[in-house]
Amino acid sequence: MTERIGILAIGHGSKLPYNKEVVTQIADYIAQKHTNVVVRTGFMENSEPTLEEAIEGFSGTGVTKVAAVPVFLASGVHITKDIPEILSLDENGCGTLEIDGKTIPLCYAKPLGADELIADLVFKRAQEAL
Amino acid sequence: MTERIGILAIGHGSKLPYNKEVVTQIADYIAQKHTNVVVRTGFMENSEPTLEEAIEGFSGTGVTKVAAVPVFLASGVHITKDIPEILSLDENGCGTLEIDGKTIPLCYAKPLGADELIADLVFKRAQEAL
Repeated sequence: MTERIGILAIGHGSKLPYNKEVVTQIADYIAQKHTNVVVRTGFMENSEPTLEEAIEGFSGTGVTKVAAVPVFLASGVHITKDIPEILSLDENGCGTLEIDGKTIPLCYAKPLGADELIADLVFKRAQEAL
Repeated sequence: MTERIGILAIGHGSKLPYNKEVVTQIADYIAQKHTNVVVRTGFMENSEPTLEEAIEGFSGTGVTKVAAVPVFLASGVHITKDIPEILSLDENGCGTLEIDGKTIPLCYAKPLGADELIADLVFKRAQEAL
């Protein structure tokens, strides 16, 4: 069976539209660059789709493995507690999804963290403002 | 007078240590790479220093201009409302700071936003997990 990777990009969500816009655009960039990867977005608060709806969105895509990636700068309560509960992850951040009647592995990724790429982007934003 | 740029890196803050750790590390990367720039961090919630304390931290550094950069993925209420109020910014995102008895310009930068660099980082986090 051909392996087909899914990415569940998890956003914080917001009452304002900006978080959803940014997370969706990031997901679109990934999908455009990696055309064999299936990318879906889900949100923790106020924005839709929810995580559950996002997971349903993998139906019919043939994904054989999914990485759940928090599109958050840093870890926090959503990442340490809420998302693992919703996704029924074990202590190692592993779980399964039922997609089209098949059980496939689900792996939990780390948030963005303090990468030098982000430092460069913060510096660029400062230069743009000055 | 020699120009000396300051960057006020504004983090969300959290009851957990991770947001402060990430924002502080990002600020350290900028300071290491741009040694003529003065970088200070301040937080909106739960973490210290506050924005006010961070601004006091520019005292004695000789900064002549400061960019306030929200180290947030996307805009939200802190960015559209709270930070402009605390920094007394005008409609164009401009203001001033009083540092060592001098009035210097303060410019408000955009948050990170949906940059392709971040999409690449999300994809890398997915690969690490799979």
